[in-house]
Amino acid sequence: MFELDDRLAADTVPIGDLNLCRVLLMNDVRYPWLILVPAKPDLTEVGDLTRDDRIVLMDEMEQASNAIRALYNPIKVNVGALGNVVRQLHVHIIGRTECDPAWPGPVWGHSSAEAYAPDAIAMRVREVRGKLGF
Amino acid sequence: MFELDDRLAADTVPIGDLNLCRVLLMNDVRYPWLILVPAKPDLTEVGDLTRDDRIVLMDEMEQASNAIRALYNPIKVNVGALGNVVRQLHVHIIGRTECDPAWPGPVWGHSSAEAYAPDAIAMRVREVRGKLGF
Repeated sequence: MFELDDRLAADTVPIGDLNLCRVLLMNDVRYPWLILVPAKPDLTEVGDLTRDDRIVLMDEMEQASNAIRALYNPIKVNVGALGNVVRQLHVHIIGRTECDPAWPGPVWGHSSAEAYAPDAIAMRVREVRGKLGF
Repeated sequence: MFELDDRLAADTVPIGDLNLCRVLLMNDVRYPWLILVPAKPDLTEVGDLTRDDRIVLMDEMEQASNAIRALYNPIKVNVGALGNVVRQLHVHIIGRTECDPAWPGPVWGHSSAEAYAPDAIAMRVREVRGKLGF
């Protein structure tokens, strides 16, 4: 059975489930930042997925990237699967701009998250859900 | 026509060409670190590739990850496509261990590269070439 890692659950709010991945919104108002978690048990590396599931993951990463591009018009989308701290396989999709605090470095490890205000996170969740067709 | 970005060329040594990607070894002795560059012009985002090419990229990322796992036995493989500094589409594949200087943070932006000694880089290129079947 798939169970979302506690740390991922604590740092994010749920957006919805695609065919393979649970889509999460990182609770950091400074970046439009989605996390895709393939909803199967015991995954750590992308290579733990079957090739068919890797292709679905690639498609869902594109869906998430396109949603971020359409909604927030970033200069660059950063994509990464690190997992040094949280081992459960998860893929970050982050819209970046020259005005964000970590630019042009990576967001990971840069500084602590700044949580959204309740209204703002509800609006962002709605926007992303709409764009992903939930 | 595809032309490798000058900064990528300066920071790496070439390993060889897969069907889609040029494979480069990052000249940083502290990490087993490959960079895949899809050898087509005018690519910035993964989504600039056709879906067929994205699937080939996914397969070649797996080949590279498997080579790093087989040769260097990392705790975790980090995969990322950032491109905030070098815009030409490129994908990092990095073997990580608890003893590396950036652990558990990301390697990008952590500290300046430490170049290999000439003998050491020749050996590493040979190892990776062998494992990738060049």
